[in-house]
Amino acid sequence: MSSINPTHATDATACPLCTDTGGHEVYSTPLWRVVRVEDSAFPAFYRLIWQSHVAEFSDLSAADRQACMEAVTGIERALRTALQATKINLATLGNVVPHLHWHVVARFDWDSHFPNPIWGTPLRSLAVPAVQLLALDLAELDERVRQALAELSA
Amino acid sequence: MSSINPTHATDATACPLCTDTGGHEVYSTPLWRVVRVEDSAFPAFYRLIWQSHVAEFSDLSAADRQACMEAVTGIERALRTALQATKINLATLGNVVPHLHWHVVARFDWDSHFPNPIWGTPLRSLAVPAVQLLALDLAELDERVRQALAELSA
Repeated sequence: MSSINPTHATDATACPLCTDTGGHEVYSTPLWRVVRVEDSAFPAFYRLIWQSHVAEFSDLSAADRQACMEAVTGIERALRTALQATKINLATLGNVVPHLHWHVVARFDWDSHFPNPIWGTPLRSLAVPAVQLLALDLAELDERVRQALAELSA
Repeated sequence: MSSINPTHATDATACPLCTDTGGHEVYSTPLWRVVRVEDSAFPAFYRLIWQSHVAEFSDLSAADRQACMEAVTGIERALRTALQATKINLATLGNVVPHLHWHVVARFDWDSHFPNPIWGTPLRSLAVPAVQLLALDLAELDERVRQALAELSA
């Protein structure tokens, strides 16, 4: 695929996802790690970060794409089971940090932006921190995600 | 997985992606169809729509998840090969229409929102319509996407 445009930032030495964990680490394998993103508006927000520095999903081999999405699915299922989420949002953008990472976010009809994307316009203010409205505390939620990912790897 | 929260809208009769094509159809299989979204700011914007009414990616079987993402990858590769895109963005949100669909959007460092998400704040105005800045016209781009998807299904 020599005609594919290379990413605009292939310099791993300047990549924050190559030099830093990128969040509160929940689980890690040689291929990918999962962190919880610390976002007060969206507390049930996890990110799967591919360990090696590739920009696009299609840069992965077919086997790696499958492994990647089965892990994303594991996070999604853990969030669905643990929380009464209205919807799960999945995205890989990478416009700012072109190192493959997947956002997995549990959305609620009461959250500040719903049904807008988390990157869109907020629609309401909450009377209490969003984390207080989750069915589980974050340590327990992390544990559920960790267990789901460990089962996948088993 | 009986403890998984069902989607908030399982009524397919009220679902616009069950009753309408959802865009300019480019390719279709029994499992999914691909349409080009008519968005003047983001002309190289395709959407893979799952044919049956499921809300979440994890509602699919493992085989269907793989078929889904291989098709998404086919669109991504066609866009990368045809256009000098800065980045490809993939997302499945479904907060408004909870019928599984994947957004596949070619992003350019000159586009109105880059590097913000397409749902975020615009950062600049263009002097000409964005479609005029693509390396191919849309009919030819559609054909490249169609060919990539036909090869997958062959």
